[in-house]
Amino acid sequence: MTDAADGLAPAGPFPPADRAAVYRAIRERRDVRGQFRPDPIDPATLRRLLQAAHDAPSVGLSQPWNFILLRDPALRARLHAAFQTANAEAAARFPDRAALYSALKLEGILQAPLNLCITCDRSRGGDHVLGRTHDPATDLYSTACAAQNLALAARAEGIGVGWVSIFRQDDLRRILRLPDHVVPVAYLCLGHVTELYRQPELQARGWAKRLPLEDLILEDGWKTPPPA
Amino acid sequence: MTDAADGLAPAGPFPPADRAAVYRAIRERRDVRGQFRPDPIDPATLRRLLQAAHDAPSVGLSQPWNFILLRDPALRARLHAAFQTANAEAAARFPDRAALYSALKLEGILQAPLNLCITCDRSRGGDHVLGRTHDPATDLYSTACAAQNLALAARAEGIGVGWVSIFRQDDLRRILRLPDHVVPVAYLCLGHVTELYRQPELQARGWAKRLPLEDLILEDGWKTPPPA
Repeated sequence: MTDAADGLAPAGPFPPADRAAVYRAIRERRDVRGQFRPDPIDPATLRRLLQAAHDAPSVGLSQPWNFILLRDPALRARLHAAFQTANAEAAARFPDRAALYSALKLEGILQAPLNLCITCDRSRGGDHVLGRTHDPATDLYSTACAAQNLALAARAEGIGVGWVSIFRQDDLRRILRLPDHVVPVAYLCLGHVTELYRQPELQARGWAKRLPLEDLILEDGWKTPPPA
Repeated sequence: MTDAADGLAPAGPFPPADRAAVYRAIRERRDVRGQFRPDPIDPATLRRLLQAAHDAPSVGLSQPWNFILLRDPALRARLHAAFQTANAEAAARFPDRAALYSALKLEGILQAPLNLCITCDRSRGGDHVLGRTHDPATDLYSTACAAQNLALAARAEGIGVGWVSIFRQDDLRRILRLPDHVVPVAYLCLGHVTELYRQPELQARGWAKRLPLEDLILEDGWKTPPPA
């Protein structure tokens, strides 16, 4: 059935060991805040991580992402200050859990050897992008998929990734000089790690719990219970 | 350095073969429309795919996703009709490429043995979710990450996934009986495949081209060229 002329190639399941490796990356990936080592990520490894992100699916093959590498110490200091401003605002939303919130480490902006902002260019692909006409948010979803590809490749490389979302959006835009049509989707801290939490850190620290998967599965529509 | 008491475990790079398997899944994943075989996905395999999705990162560990399995033939027929309505509207946006657009197969709703809608419950986690106070879209990004985890696990299992975004959102909400606080993020068609496109199908069919990765990398802010 394979026909090289139309671009199809045989594609079956991976061998068991390879399949297990994929699941291991998915299962062991952690959002990292405090475990970054200071040694830099070598350029070849970084290139593989960025290629993994670029291999993500995108609506209409629009590839709306850019990868802004953030190394300049002065810039990183401004970003860290912007985080601190936003985090003080965020902490005020949790008055009943103030002590626990303040004990959480929520970013590794200065500790990690590299920061990376993955952005979404809402104008990429022109006025009409195949598959985006009825759901304009699909380009943002594509960009999130790129971030997840990078996180999984990073786990396989022994590199931790921490996603920081506690910034006033205007601060982030100004510091990164983003034009209006570019949205910062994923602000990531990256660095080698030698240990990771066994469970999500927010679970290990008592902030939140994993939900049972079976409670999240529905059949043929919202809130119809699955068959026994 | 490892301390079981605080939940950390050793975590280094994967062995080379396992690392290669992760990159293979990322590189060979394709959005599938026409290659689905009709045989069903067995329950254990489906459970592994859903667990992979559920292992995604989520803002504040909010786990905002639900997984709606769509099997009922009458429901699937309504969803296919909804696709056709939206696709006729979408095709009209590409008057200069009408013949090419109409030749593209953009869904496998009826052909695939299973459809799955991954939704985002915007109320999950309550009024204040850690990490979401300054960017309300982060729960949608978490849900997109879950879809990407599922797509990569599916590649390793020899199962193809096709993301269909050509629906009027109101049609999709009505047919799936979604309440207002639940957003359909990823409508997916799933089934076993024996062959896949070597390149993204939209590239193989001449609709769009891959962008060079190096053109998408920026240093220390928007549109500052990287160092030579």
